[in-house]
Formats: sequence, C-alpha cells, structure tokens
Amino acid sequence: MVERVAIVGAGPSGLAALRAFETARRAGADVPEVVCFEKQANWGGLWNYTWRTGLDEFGEPVHGSMYRYLWSNGPKECLEFADYGFEEHFGRPIPSYPPRAVLHDYIAGRVEKSGVKAYVRFSTPVRHVSFDEKTQTFQVTAKDLVADRHVTESFDVVIVANGHFSVPNVPAFPGIDKFPGRVLHAHDFRSADEFAGKNVLLVGSSYSAEDIGVQCYKYGARSITFSYRTRPMGFHWPDGFEEKPLLQKLSGRTATFKDGSTKEVDAIVLCTGYQHSFPFLPDELRLKTANRLYPLGLYKGIFWQDNPKLIYIGMQDQYYTFNMFDAQAWYARDVVLGRIALPSAEEQAADIAVWRAREEALENPFQQIDFQTDYVRDLLAATDYPHLDVDRVAELFKEWEHHKQEGILTYRDRSYPSTLTGTLAPVHHTPWIKALDDSLEAFLGVRQAAE
Amino acid sequence: MVERVAIVGAGPSGLAALRAFETARRAGADVPEVVCFEKQANWGGLWNYTWRTGLDEFGEPVHGSMYRYLWSNGPKECLEFADYGFEEHFGRPIPSYPPRAVLHDYIAGRVEKSGVKAYVRFSTPVRHVSFDEKTQTFQVTAKDLVADRHVTESFDVVIVANGHFSVPNVPAFPGIDKFPGRVLHAHDFRSADEFAGKNVLLVGSSYSAEDIGVQCYKYGARSITFSYRTRPMGFHWPDGFEEKPLLQKLSGRTATFKDGSTKEVDAIVLCTGYQHSFPFLPDELRLKTANRLYPLGLYKGIFWQDNPKLIYIGMQDQYYTFNMFDAQAWYARDVVLGRIALPSAEEQAADIAVWRAREEALENPFQQIDFQTDYVRDLLAATDYPHLDVDRVAELFKEWEHHKQEGILTYRDRSYPSTLTGTLAPVHHTPWIKALDDSLEAFLGVRQAAE
Repeated sequence: MVERVAIVGAGPSGLAALRAFETARRAGADVPEVVCFEKQANWGGLWNYTWRTGLDEFGEPVHGSMYRYLWSNGPKECLEFADYGFEEHFGRPIPSYPPRAVLHDYIAGRVEKSGVKAYVRFSTPVRHVSFDEKTQTFQVTAKDLVADRHVTESFDVVIVANGHFSVPNVPAFPGIDKFPGRVLHAHDFRSADEFAGKNVLLVGSSYSAEDIGVQCYKYGARSITFSYRTRPMGFHWPDGFEEKPLLQKLSGRTATFKDGSTKEVDAIVLCTGYQHSFPFLPDELRLKTANRLYPLGLYKGIFWQDNPKLIYIGMQDQYYTFNMFDAQAWYARDVVLGRIALPSAEEQAADIAVWRAREEALENPFQQIDFQTDYVRDLLAATDYPHLDVDRVAELFKEWEHHKQEGILTYRDRSYPSTLTGTLAPVHHTPWIKALDDSLEAFLGVRQAAE
Repeated sequence: MVERVAIVGAGPSGLAALRAFETARRAGADVPEVVCFEKQANWGGLWNYTWRTGLDEFGEPVHGSMYRYLWSNGPKECLEFADYGFEEHFGRPIPSYPPRAVLHDYIAGRVEKSGVKAYVRFSTPVRHVSFDEKTQTFQVTAKDLVADRHVTESFDVVIVANGHFSVPNVPAFPGIDKFPGRVLHAHDFRSADEFAGKNVLLVGSSYSAEDIGVQCYKYGARSITFSYRTRPMGFHWPDGFEEKPLLQKLSGRTATFKDGSTKEVDAIVLCTGYQHSFPFLPDELRLKTANRLYPLGLYKGIFWQDNPKLIYIGMQDQYYTFNMFDAQAWYARDVVLGRIALPSAEEQAADIAVWRAREEALENPFQQIDFQTDYVRDLLAATDYPHLDVDRVAELFKEWEHHKQEGILTYRDRSYPSTLTGTLAPVHHTPWIKALDDSLEAFLGVRQAAE
C-alpha cells in the first residue's frame, strides 16, 4: 500500500503528476499523500523567467534557461492539455505561438484551478534520496532554503520530475580562455538587447542555437554565425546569417572553423545542449542518458527498471511536451494506485528493447514524430486521460516542420486548429519579427505591441 | 587515536593543512592518513583561473571568482609563507604586487616541492558529511566527477577548507529583470575587455567593486559608477568615476539612486559579496556566519564548538591570508596529533566571547589589522611554524592602506621589504596602469608587457 509519494519538481512534469493524483482523488479514489518539492519560489519550472544566472539568491544553481522575448517555437496546439484547453483558460481562441509568459499562465492556470498548491513545498530543493531495502521506503532529504534547514522524510514512491534543460553541457575550445568578449552557454542567455550591434557566434545547431540566433537578429545583432558539428540547419537564412562547420579555435576575436575559414566575433553563445542531472540521487537510482527519444533503464520511459517505485517523468527528448508528461503521469499514477500492474522484469526488459531498437532505426524528424506519437498513444490507451487526438497532433508537428523550412523568421505567424475544439487559432496582431514586446498583455491585445 | 583525516578543498587553506601534516611527517612524527578532496582538476582554489561561469563541465557550480588581469590587491610581503619565501620560489626578488598566475605558481610551488599531490583526489567534490555518535567517526560521501560515481568513506576528523568567496550573494533591485544589458555578479566577471566603451555600474563598495571598477577603467570602459549602501570608498578617483548612494531601481537603462540622481548605464556588476556555503554539511555541523573577523561557533576560529573533530580553516574575513591559514593549519594539526589539548567547553566559550567582544569594538581598518595580527600571533605561539614577524606584517598592511588612499591607480607600483629576508622588492618594469599583459612571463620580464 502506497501511503506517501514524493514528487521532485513542480514544473510541467511534476505538475502533471500532481494533477493526475488530484483528478483521481476528486473522482473519489483513495490516493496517497503527495508532497511536491520545488526548488524555485514559484511553479512552472523552466517557464518561470528569472534574470538571475549561475547561482540564485540562495546559492543554488539557477533552474531557468529561458530568456526574455522567448516565444514558443512550436504550435501551442501540439502541447495543449486534453483536460484543460487554451480556450478554456483564456476564454477565447489565441494565436498559435504564444510568448513565454502566456504559456506560464496557461500551465499555472490548470493547477491553480485544481487547488493543488497546498501539496507543494516551494524553495525546497531535494538534496538526497536513498532507498532502504528493509522497509522498502525512500528517505528524502530536502532543504528549506528560507528556513535554512534540512528535513528528512520517508516515502513509498519517488517521482523524479526535475527536468533536463537546466544543467548546461559546456565544451571548451582552444583559446576560449583568452577570448576578449563575453562567452556564455545558452542556459545563461537572458536578453538579446545586450548583443545589439555585435557579431555573435552560436556554437550548435539545435533549437537553442536556432532560436537565440534569430532572437539576436530580431533585436539588432550585426551578424549571426552558427557553427555546427554534424550538419548545418539549412534554413533559408536572411542576409547577416551564415553557417560554418565546427569551431576549431579562437585567437583573440578570430574564430577559426573546420573548413579553415575565419570570422571576427564579439560574443560566443555555446548552444551545446544540456545534461540529465540528478545530484540528489545515489548511483544505483540515477538515470544516465543522453538526450534521446527512448532512454534506457526506464520501462515505458517511466519506471526505473531496478526499482519501479522510482518514477521518472519527462526525461525523453521531446516533440511532445505538456501532454506527453500528462500521459506519463496518468500512467504512473495508475500503477501507483494499483490500477495497472507492471509486468515481470524480463517482460519489461523485452518491451524496452523493442522500443529502443525502433528508436535507433529512425532516420528523420518525421519518423521521430511518428515514434513519439506511438509512444504517447501507448500510454494514453491504458488510462482515463481525456481523449487526445495524437494523429492530428502528429500532423500538426509535421506541418510545423514544413513551415519552419519555408521561413524560419515567419513560421510563428502561422495558425493551426486546436485538436480539442477544432477552432483555428486567430492570426496574431503583429508579425513575430516586429513584435518586440513579449508581455502577456501585448500578446492578448490588452495593449498593442510596442516596437 | 586519529587514523584518518579528510580535508575538503585544496585551495590555500586546504593546502596549508596538507603541508602542516606533511611537515610533521617528514620530521618523524606519526601522522594520520590524510585525504584531500578537491572539486577542481587542479589545486590552488580561487587562484585557478577559469573562463567558465555558472556551472562547469560536470554541471558543478564554478568555484573560481577570479578574472583575467587580476593582480594582487595587497603586497605579497603580507601573505608570504614563513616556511617558503617568494625569493626561495622564484630564485630572486620580485615586485610586490604580482598578477594572479604568479601567486598561483607560488602557492603550487610549495606543495609540489613537498610531494603531497598523492593525497589529493582531484575532480572529487564532497557531497555529504555525517557524524556517527556511536563510532565517533564521520562518513564522507564524495563524487568522482570523471568516473561519475560516489564513494563513501569513514574519517576521524574533517577539515573544512572550501573557502567562502565562491557562492555569490545576489540581491535584487526593482526593474533589474527588465534591464536591457548584461547583469552579473562579480563571481561571474571574467574579462574587462567586454566592457570597453561601456558605462558600467558596480553595486558595492568593498574589494570587488573597487578592483573590478579600476580594472574596467584600465581596459577602456567609458565610465565607472559605484553605488554604496553605507558609505563611499572615498578614494581619489580620476575623471570618469563617480560614487552614488544605493541603487533604488532601474527603468530601462536608467539607474536611480537613493539621492534621487540617475545615470544611464550599459552593464551592472553586482559586487555584493559572498555567502559562507557548505552544502555538504548537515545543519548541526554547519557554520552560519556573515563575513567577519571572528565568526561565532569556532574555538580559536577553527574548532566547531559542538564537535571539535570538525575543523574549519580560513573562514574569517581577511587581512591575513596564506600565512593565517598556515597558522590555523599548524594549530589544528597539533590538536589532531595530541600536542595541544583543547580546554573544556566552558573555557572555549569564554575564550570565544572575549575575542568576539573585542572584534565588535573595532572601529577602523587599522584596529582590524591589529586584531587579526593578535589572532594570528596567538595561534603561532603554540606551534612550531617558522618565525613570522607579525608586527612587521601589520605595519606593511597599514602602509598599504595609506598607499591606497594616496592613489588607487598607483598603489600597486609600490615596493615593500620581505619580512623573511629583509630584501626590498624591486620596482616592476611597467606601471600597473600600463601593464596590460598579466602573464607570469610578462611579469617576470621573460618578455615585456604588451600594451
């Protein structure tokens, strides 16, 4: 009998778990006591903007990697919760690519409505988790940052939902220690204004590089140079952008690339990804994985194989986000409640092997979208999560990929229909490239976007 | 009988402890096994320069707070080790204010010579310490970052020497979240070049503000504005500097100060101090103190009152540095070896109260220097550390204070005599304000300073 569940983190994944248990409780189920430990003073995880970088006011590593002027880089119709739509939250249809504050408002709105705040201990990072074989319980030690005091409590189940876009992966390059300008990882990027008039080098070719690059361009950078390890992003870049192969070295302000070409740059943003990091977990409970669609060690991408009372939510590389976390959380909840029985260790291992083999054969983003769609579908089929039309979501993801190819500076002006209501999103009042004010008020048209 | 001693940190304080035990061992004493856990890949603590900020390549908070072009802000004659002089290390007298790399070379030279590297586990931060009352031993858990694995071992004594200038104290100001330029704490300051041509605001009025301000001026900042909470530094600032009372708010680039005056600034450096931080210690063993000359809870400023097997080195606010750490380390070693007996808990408390009362009555830097001189003298009197003429060191500190008052941009051109050899330091080949190359080679004259 599970009496107490600890959730580590109150971002989209942890909130999905909170919401899953609360939904069952309100439907009359006998659910365990849930305690959600959150490092930040607010919930919403990465969707909380902070001006802070490095260490926060308590000396804790800053969780936030988001920056000012960040707008969703995928259609909101692809991440909509099946049990709480955008129209329900905002009272009317809104455009497809909202800025950060709007999405934070949406995430927070669902959980505020369900009254789960009392379960969350804010400003309380988990420091240490251990498992006692004898009692079959976890000892969870957390620090109350405000009281400056540690507390240790016992739990039957631990749900790890601390995200994997907070601890940067930061490679070194010869000469970087003497570069006479700013060097930062994307994790510490906050305000594109700082780079106006500058020649900015972005090392990396994934979402961070793409988005911080166009962001800097939008706010007045002189030039944007991307440096890729494997292959260029290959979008139709406007003048002022270029893609170079991998950075080899720096001499003063001169960057030299693998093709021998050089470029004088004023600032370097390392968009080199993030590490899965669980400093609070002992080695035997700790997931070690690169950022990929099907990490090993987790049955259904959720349950720690060696001890399925340890649950991970949201540890996959993602097309699906909020609604995939919901699918995982509902499934995890139903296992905790005894509604779903886990198969034998051998069957779990065999199931993982099948998914992993399929993942390794994927050749392009379209196949990856189908893969993750099937993964989410598989989870949803087993629970009472409201109907989510994943085939339609998959179509939208593919349209989005095409729209990005058609115009990296214009794709955010597109509109898509909600898979819940069918309503086509309205066109935003200002093209994204000219919408310099990213506030919720400007976006919703309470006031016009300042330019 | 003490069999195993753990030292947390291989910076100046931890190395002093290593050196203290090794000196006794080489003199024939029976010393315990010593294991020094060091988070960084090299020893020297803060004196290791790193271009990294925030989190390092392992996702660990970056220890280093030093920046390029940092030169000692006090005469080297005030920090000289009594058992290893600068002349002995460099083979000749060198000027009084060396740049960072030269001081790192000196610190490392002493310990390299004494062959203690085998006792240090590099890239291995301590994660957790607990004390077992039954066995009267500490369990120390550390993470081998390279192997990505934790190890727990038992020790009779733990020496905490992880420094207290690595975890920034970062206050917020209204509007700072929307400031359209770079905001950073001094901990993350690396290269003054980045601020050339900019109007830089430094919040704070202690060493970091003073030194980063003159540094930015030296490398071409347009203007330097300091903002103080209590009182201005009051140096004879050249044109382009000004001191303002405390920052109240930011509106766009406009900073408003307590006197109602405003200033347009391009970058903000928060020189707002550091926190004593021991995330690896449980509450009952953890020192909580502001940065001051006589923290409470430590007998002789060293031994944790509630459990004197826990030893802290270097936790004081400092005039004295390297040689004070030596004095503490030699004293601590002699207690561990049973050469010095600790008095009763009551006597310890009474002794602390006397020192603390005296500390609280101090009125100015000159009295503070005398206080810390007496503190170091008291420790040295009890051990066999080689003779250190602390009265002469105190005189040099007071001369240094006068020289700073006479010229904040010229005091580093002064020379002082070694208290060990009496040799007057040679004048550097280039006035500090023109010495733009801070390499060891340029300083030692192997090549001329580039300008």
